[in-house]
Amino acid sequence: MARPNRAIQSNMGWSTVDRIVVQGMDLTQQLLGKVNLGDMAFLELTGQLPTPQQSIVFNAMLVTLVEHGLTPQSIATRLVYLAAPEALQAAVAAGLCGVGSVFAGGSEGTAKMLHEALPQDPQADLAEVARRIVSDFKSERAAIPGLGHARHKPIDPRTPCLFEIAAANQLRGRYVALLEHIGHEAERVHNRSLPINATGAIGALCCDLGFDWKLARGIAVIGRAIGLVGHLAEEIRQPIAREIQLRAEEECSEQARKASPLG
Amino acid sequence: MARPNRAIQSNMGWSTVDRIVVQGMDLTQQLLGKVNLGDMAFLELTGQLPTPQQSIVFNAMLVTLVEHGLTPQSIATRLVYLAAPEALQAAVAAGLCGVGSVFAGGSEGTAKMLHEALPQDPQADLAEVARRIVSDFKSERAAIPGLGHARHKPIDPRTPCLFEIAAANQLRGRYVALLEHIGHEAERVHNRSLPINATGAIGALCCDLGFDWKLARGIAVIGRAIGLVGHLAEEIRQPIAREIQLRAEEECSEQARKASPLG
Amino acid sequence: MARPNRAIQSNMGWSTVDRIVVQGMDLTQQLLGKVNLGDMAFLELTGQLPTPQQSIVFNAMLVTLVEHGLTPQSIATRLVYLAAPEALQAAVAAGLCGVGSVFAGGSEGTAKMLHEALPQDPQADLAEVARRIVSDFKSERAAIPGLGHARHKPIDPRTPCLFEIAAANQLRGRYVALLEHIGHEAERVHNRSLPINATGAIGALCCDLGFDWKLARGIAVIGRAIGLVGHLAEEIRQPIAREIQLRAEEECSEQARKASPLG
Amino acid sequence: MARPNRAIQSNMGWSTVDRIVVQGMDLTQQLLGKVNLGDMAFLELTGQLPTPQQSIVFNAMLVTLVEHGLTPQSIATRLVYLAAPEALQAAVAAGLCGVGSVFAGGSEGTAKMLHEALPQDPQADLAEVARRIVSDFKSERAAIPGLGHARHKPIDPRTPCLFEIAAANQLRGRYVALLEHIGHEAERVHNRSLPINATGAIGALCCDLGFDWKLARGIAVIGRAIGLVGHLAEEIRQPIAREIQLRAEEECSEQARKASPLG
Repeated sequence: MARPNRAIQSNMGWSTVDRIVVQGMDLTQQLLGKVNLGDMAFLELTGQLPTPQQSIVFNAMLVTLVEHGLTPQSIATRLVYLAAPEALQAAVAAGLCGVGSVFAGGSEGTAKMLHEALPQDPQADLAEVARRIVSDFKSERAAIPGLGHARHKPIDPRTPCLFEIAAANQLRGRYVALLEHIGHEAERVHNRSLPINATGAIGALCCDLGFDWKLARGIAVIGRAIGLVGHLAEEIRQPIAREIQLRAEEECSEQARKASPLG
Repeated sequence: MARPNRAIQSNMGWSTVDRIVVQGMDLTQQLLGKVNLGDMAFLELTGQLPTPQQSIVFNAMLVTLVEHGLTPQSIATRLVYLAAPEALQAAVAAGLCGVGSVFAGGSEGTAKMLHEALPQDPQADLAEVARRIVSDFKSERAAIPGLGHARHKPIDPRTPCLFEIAAANQLRGRYVALLEHIGHEAERVHNRSLPINATGAIGALCCDLGFDWKLARGIAVIGRAIGLVGHLAEEIRQPIAREIQLRAEEECSEQARKASPLG
Repeated sequence: MARPNRAIQSNMGWSTVDRIVVQGMDLTQQLLGKVNLGDMAFLELTGQLPTPQQSIVFNAMLVTLVEHGLTPQSIATRLVYLAAPEALQAAVAAGLCGVGSVFAGGSEGTAKMLHEALPQDPQADLAEVARRIVSDFKSERAAIPGLGHARHKPIDPRTPCLFEIAAANQLRGRYVALLEHIGHEAERVHNRSLPINATGAIGALCCDLGFDWKLARGIAVIGRAIGLVGHLAEEIRQPIAREIQLRAEEECSEQARKASPLG
Repeated sequence: MARPNRAIQSNMGWSTVDRIVVQGMDLTQQLLGKVNLGDMAFLELTGQLPTPQQSIVFNAMLVTLVEHGLTPQSIATRLVYLAAPEALQAAVAAGLCGVGSVFAGGSEGTAKMLHEALPQDPQADLAEVARRIVSDFKSERAAIPGLGHARHKPIDPRTPCLFEIAAANQLRGRYVALLEHIGHEAERVHNRSLPINATGAIGALCCDLGFDWKLARGIAVIGRAIGLVGHLAEEIRQPIAREIQLRAEEECSEQARKASPLG
């Protein structure tokens, strides 16, 4: 007895012989030449073009995520390109695989924490919510997402910049406010500098812009994809992956050979 | 005797305690809130912010690449997300792996063909170059990159739209002209409709904008990365991957079981 | 003031002009023609060749993981190959990205649960430990890893088979015993059939063989990599990816077009 | 007017409530505890279990491919794991993306060359075929796949070892013979040492075992997947990825900062 098929639906796009429709809009009539890439990303994620204010804030968030220098991801992308230059897309995919919990994907954790913490009740006392969150993380000896940075202290310069852009566009909302309460409370309890870092700021802005917290990592992926292609553009002009690989290989091989009875 | 280390260099970005520099520009002072995501991509790939004209054309090229409906790549991304929702980045990476020669990565082939064909000599006779290219591909019985589309005929509506945007911004150049000559010659020789398709148009525009042909696929990767995150946004709201998988699994299992002596 | 370099070490392999050493063994003298692929995998993960008993059990675990039909992963691999046949490795990588928490990667959860639950004290009362685990998961309304199967009930036929092979080779240990206690307790508490499934069985055997729980998913990855290459072998002979994609694309496009004011 | 569906077929595996069938064999009755992982891979790729001779040769080929030290791929896998330890499968996938034309995937090129060169005619003069191939590559100034090795010269020790194992099992055939002719001819024409390297040897053996040349890279992928999980096993015990990344990041950042007017 076969399972009956269930209908599947997708409204991302469709086309006829002479028309292409994306998110309900005519691609050539309404989008090309009229919207920038960040606005197109907003349309893809929400089904709506951004307001001018949303456009500025969302583009700023994405631009922040693009380039972070020689991260684990960008080195991985360069190494894979070295080995398989005929498949540039696979090199970018390799680096993207590393947009994870430790590096680059941290905005997801912040967005999830804020989303779960903030009650629908618009009268909620944010300071009280923040105290409970900091206390909970402390009792589990877990780091609070979105706080602290190894290099940028006592302030991550991206955070006030992004929050000012959001404020100037009337999009600095309750989630940013809650994260600031959490940051202050955490600094008080742990008695050390714990600035809101850029991924934390972006996680909070994702919430204030209305995104599902599950998409926070997707927004990081979009930014990083651009950055990884950028690294390949540089790798093509000025390669470094082979040297990085050779140095590591030689140091380890020499050491292993010397330690071996077969060496 | 050890190989001496060679210096490695990268100028993508660096930071100090209170400053972040990307492509030689101060991130918070010069970029955030001031440039859109497409312009940031241009900066990453070239080291320069685009002119207003380049910005319009480059953003239009990227926007064209974002969304193509239920392609092999977007279905693959949804399937991987179904199996590993905790690693959204891996689902996007999976789909990007398929920005290949058959689907989605075709602009590389066009850009390479045009780049290799067009001599430095600005007086080159483009019609003559086009005749040689079409003849060469015909004798190898190979399809000419960038021409023909299964659905959009006799015209791919994106192509004239992109070329008009380029012309209006003084960026329609010799590579677009050459591809148009190739298209006309191919239609004449093969006696059938062979419109310049969107990936062909974008490959030619990559050349006219001065990009290395090796980056044409990277530009496709940027657009598709956004589209794949978009598909996950929809998959989260309205999942279809499980149904697609179950239908295929059930049809094949039933058939295999019936054909088997063990069934 | 620069951070001083720290030495890096790796003992996976090294070579000279005429010798190749892997895991401390001479590849051509000691391994080629003498060990099978499963034993080589054991050597890679542990630094030791397996005993004959370990070889049988470990190979059986891996063989179990290879082929599971048209899973999300194998369909994703076929779709990516359709789009980028020139990069077979990227198609396999795409499918592997989905060895996740929902499908295929479940042995990690079981191994982690068992590892964390079983005290060093060899006198621990396994039934008591099992009661605590089942109770904890129930109070968090979470599913217990390794139990239950949508199709194979009341027994997953792979589980008794694997446990018998382990027992016949003196490798059925405390972790398998604990998982069986957990299974019985869970069936009693929830009053329904909750067989130990194959990934659960493999997770427990990983622990009894002494693997770090973090490698349980790696063992699944090894098995699945082989299976995904197998699916490509079939896809090359008898392609189905295009039909799967077209059906989904057509059903969704038609529906979206009809619902659109532009359609 | 809708396109009619075409039937899809896959015979990789199917199951009922109490039986699992893989490649037409009962998993628990016929495979578990009875076949090793290399034989299972052979079954997956060909639909048949190997003969004892095929088993020895195929396992030896795969074992050769597993471990190559700190290659671009294994470093990439470690870097991605550093950033996303919660998604081990994505780290392996990242490294596999690099089983490409330059490193690790070379057996495909050899297999393709041999497959295309060797006529069905069993009387073909292999020396003559070899002369034509070497001449063709020379006139295109292209490197001949499967020949030459940066470190292992004048002989890659794996090649005679693999060929002897094949000969001892009556599986050294015409493709190996042709590659040896090509090697000798290339050394004569180019007047330098051009040993058949391990990937070349494996490519030729793929052909003699009857595999489609398109699967040669898949066989490399299987071996490398195991090796990459092995590298993660070591990375978990003895991490090096962070140090490799920091060294590269610091060297490049310092240099970029000094060269910058903002530095």
